[in-house]
Amino acid sequence: MATLTAAQQRAQAKVEYDAFVAACPSRRLLDRISDKWVTLILAALGSDSAHQPGAGCDGEPRVMRYSELQRLLAGVSQKMLTQTLRSLERDGLVSRTVVPTVPVTVSYELTDLGLSLHEMMRGLKAWAETHMDDVLAHRETYDTRGA
Amino acid sequence: MATLTAAQQRAQAKVEYDAFVAACPSRRLLDRISDKWVTLILAALGSDSAHQPGAGCDGEPRVMRYSELQRLLAGVSQKMLTQTLRSLERDGLVSRTVVPTVPVTVSYELTDLGLSLHEMMRGLKAWAETHMDDVLAHRETYDTRGA
Repeated sequence: MATLTAAQQRAQAKVEYDAFVAACPSRRLLDRISDKWVTLILAALGSDSAHQPGAGCDGEPRVMRYSELQRLLAGVSQKMLTQTLRSLERDGLVSRTVVPTVPVTVSYELTDLGLSLHEMMRGLKAWAETHMDDVLAHRETYDTRGA
Repeated sequence: MATLTAAQQRAQAKVEYDAFVAACPSRRLLDRISDKWVTLILAALGSDSAHQPGAGCDGEPRVMRYSELQRLLAGVSQKMLTQTLRSLERDGLVSRTVVPTVPVTVSYELTDLGLSLHEMMRGLKAWAETHMDDVLAHRETYDTRGA
């Protein structure tokens, strides 16, 4: 028993995760990925055309430097970007490469696991952009009705 | 000009939304829908089998009472659930029906707009559940490497 790794123990236990259950770890993971910066980072890293909403969506992974990400994700603070990237790296969604140039070049890329989430994240971003007018119209109606 | 509604003005302006832009309203909408409670509510309202992860996924809308939602979304506070539902109703994703029984029966259902987001939300929830072990394994590796 003592020779099993934690991963093997989990595999043996055949855990069924359910995010509706408060104590399930998947609830926290869902909370982690339900974050606009996570969505935007995964959408950005997904393809070369990620920063051009109208462009094709072939979803090829893209290597981006920290500074490129910071520029594309307008308004993100350095602290927030660094924290989010570290958490994505820890969770295995993003890989980080450091090249010892002067100054050091740090770049990020989606892992296979990150790629598996990427299309959904692009979808969420596209949904918000596509349905913005609908939502604004509904808000107008709702607010007028309440007045 | 003065006779145009705000919705008509927007249609006329043919706004292109881009959530990468900090000031774009779609950024805030993305923030709004990037929320675990939003994900869980939309996943729950989506189909009769929504609370059974292994079951079919036909995505038929489902009417749920407030109390049912509260029970299914284990651990959600009344304040959080009420606020989230109100915001979803205001954005036009969920419709609220009040039947004047004693006590009053309040129920919720996805609108067509809500349905258009529902599959993605189910997908996010399923992703977290399916890849939980992968993520845990990556965290273990990351934390060991750092130690």
